[in-house]
Amino acid sequence: MSAKQNEASAPSRRRFLKFVSAGVGAAAGGPALADTLADVPPREPGADLSGHSERSQYVKIARIPEAGPGMRHVDPDDAINSKTPIDQLVGSITPTDLHYERSHSGVPNLDPAKHRLLMHGMVNKPLVLTVNDLKAMPSTSRVVFIECTGNGWESWKKADPNLTVQNTHGLISTNEWTGVPLRFLIDLVGVDRKATWMLAEGDDAAAVARSIPLTDEILSEAFVAYGQNGEPLRPAHGFPIRLIIPGFEGNLNIKWLRRFKFGDHPWMTRWETARYTQLLADGKARQFQLRMETNSVITSPSGTMKIRPGYNRITGLAWSGYGKISKVEISTDATRMWQSAQLTGLVLPKAQTRFQLDWLWDGKPTKIVSRSVDEKANVQPDRASLVAQMGTNALFHYNAQQTWSIDENGSVSNVLA
Amino acid sequence: MSAKQNEASAPSRRRFLKFVSAGVGAAAGGPALADTLADVPPREPGADLSGHSERSQYVKIARIPEAGPGMRHVDPDDAINSKTPIDQLVGSITPTDLHYERSHSGVPNLDPAKHRLLMHGMVNKPLVLTVNDLKAMPSTSRVVFIECTGNGWESWKKADPNLTVQNTHGLISTNEWTGVPLRFLIDLVGVDRKATWMLAEGDDAAAVARSIPLTDEILSEAFVAYGQNGEPLRPAHGFPIRLIIPGFEGNLNIKWLRRFKFGDHPWMTRWETARYTQLLADGKARQFQLRMETNSVITSPSGTMKIRPGYNRITGLAWSGYGKISKVEISTDATRMWQSAQLTGLVLPKAQTRFQLDWLWDGKPTKIVSRSVDEKANVQPDRASLVAQMGTNALFHYNAQQTWSIDENGSVSNVLA
Repeated sequence: MSAKQNEASAPSRRRFLKFVSAGVGAAAGGPALADTLADVPPREPGADLSGHSERSQYVKIARIPEAGPGMRHVDPDDAINSKTPIDQLVGSITPTDLHYERSHSGVPNLDPAKHRLLMHGMVNKPLVLTVNDLKAMPSTSRVVFIECTGNGWESWKKADPNLTVQNTHGLISTNEWTGVPLRFLIDLVGVDRKATWMLAEGDDAAAVARSIPLTDEILSEAFVAYGQNGEPLRPAHGFPIRLIIPGFEGNLNIKWLRRFKFGDHPWMTRWETARYTQLLADGKARQFQLRMETNSVITSPSGTMKIRPGYNRITGLAWSGYGKISKVEISTDATRMWQSAQLTGLVLPKAQTRFQLDWLWDGKPTKIVSRSVDEKANVQPDRASLVAQMGTNALFHYNAQQTWSIDENGSVSNVLA
Repeated sequence: MSAKQNEASAPSRRRFLKFVSAGVGAAAGGPALADTLADVPPREPGADLSGHSERSQYVKIARIPEAGPGMRHVDPDDAINSKTPIDQLVGSITPTDLHYERSHSGVPNLDPAKHRLLMHGMVNKPLVLTVNDLKAMPSTSRVVFIECTGNGWESWKKADPNLTVQNTHGLISTNEWTGVPLRFLIDLVGVDRKATWMLAEGDDAAAVARSIPLTDEILSEAFVAYGQNGEPLRPAHGFPIRLIIPGFEGNLNIKWLRRFKFGDHPWMTRWETARYTQLLADGKARQFQLRMETNSVITSPSGTMKIRPGYNRITGLAWSGYGKISKVEISTDATRMWQSAQLTGLVLPKAQTRFQLDWLWDGKPTKIVSRSVDEKANVQPDRASLVAQMGTNALFHYNAQQTWSIDENGSVSNVLA
């Protein structure tokens, strides 16, 4: 599978027809094929054209603001996460207003005319840039995922059977971001060749700030974004500007970006000494585990859904901070056999990739699982392997294969391995 | 340039620095570099997390509902077009709620539970499908443009100097669409091998219906979409389902799709005998000119904008109904010299492609123009060539190079060639 999109082709019609002995309508839970058009409403003139296309009154789709460990469905006052409803989405692009949200002190309301980006430290010529300065510079656009390093934290210790895939994996989203390459800004201020780290700081009240290693990869891929899916960033996602570092922890993609400082050491901010460290089995903490790993999840059928015997299409999302997804495999019999899934849309480096597989459920209890492989040959681990390596004290970087259990009634629930 | 995305790289820093002798701030019209941080507002706790990320109060961005020939900025009651503000957008993806809108009888408010797709005519087994039936089937996702064949109609006869690029080229947008391959549905009903045409009909009051030739290209690429940028279609764009035929006239991408009929001839609906025919120079009308041609336009600087002498970044969008864009060239001296522009994001078949070029304006009046070339070697024509071929009676398929004139004050305006 190359970077090009799959054109609409080669779906497994024969398998579908073989599976759907009772007719298409019955398979989908809708009316049977013999259904007539008698109840189709008559045509009538529609609403006026408008400045913005709003959602249908029949579409209810939203994020769920959540608190931290142990709390869900809380008051927005206490929420620190707002998760993308990936159980209800299709394709690879996340709707802009449903991109997941994570903040440490709420969403600042910044005036772009007053906002500044300071670049200083080990540089030849410190600069203070306006948002208009940035918009005037050469730009780049990329479709990439951003993932909170805490995505899946609930699963390190246990599997709450009431969790949906929005709960377990909703802290990841994929948008097209546009902005100024970091390399361009670095050349502009003349960063010292001895500088090996960059501090990036946000303009939120919590002043989230991270030390970022100036590797070749980050220097060639990072950029300061002012555009999100074509329009200015939304405030929840960093308006007017944020840092994008494709493939790395969400919290490095500093929102409401106000400062870059260049130096030859990490600054050891509280965000990298207290907050975003990884507690290992022996009680020690690992710092600067920055890259997001190869991961995947079946979004349908998934937790709290209900299926019927017969044809079911399995679909989900795969991603890797190392590059493109090269393969997704699915087991429908609790990991005894694996089949390759079809990748059905954009296959881009460090972006979510949609997969699907036809499945005929025989009505017997089973478990379904997906696992991804990326172009660097990283394989998504099963839970036992991840726990053997990391223990269960960690809060971050949970990328084990997600298992959904299906009981004899077709009820789908979250289980461990 | 291949299908892969450009990673953030190789912007022309040296040229930028050479151009910006007065400092970055001055180049961008913002405060100069010596500007301090004194007026940066203090930090304060931000707003609660939410179910949806709304736009900033500082971002005003909307389509313009317009009437037909000769009328603009009209009452929504009379509007038939609502144009995408491409002068204010970045990247390639169009925000979902700003995708251009074109309807013949307003936007119907359809209940997806009651909506049906009838497939009949020269088929082995007629079917009536529900929306849930379609969602249960194998799917495909593609990022493609949809363009109203009337995009640019104002320019066939004259150039109104007051038009913005939203006015001249705002009837095109690019989204990721997800749905069921047409080929899959055709196999499902067993379309007769002798069937060479398909009637697609919408559920709007105007009952827009088009005859679509069942070419190999259309059979392999068309699909029935229920997803738009990850979520259900918006009503203005066909909720709950629409036809997508990548690269072909917008009106073939039937919104509110309710019927496919298969046959061995076109149906000669009023949409292909009266409305969407192309009036030639000799007074005859051409029918079934269905593919959208190779096109491009500079979106900044563009009509009614004002620029200053010195560094200016030229950016715009290119697209072709034949496949990928392979090259965009820009002239900044009224077509005497042409330079290759950089393609800065997604380069996908039948999708809009973003381009940019550094430019040092010397302050003298000039004209700037872009022209695109696609992977099938189709070259966007200049206006004289297009008019020589088509005359000026046509309303549709205007794809001549767009010329922006810049006067000694830096004011940019729409002119003919």
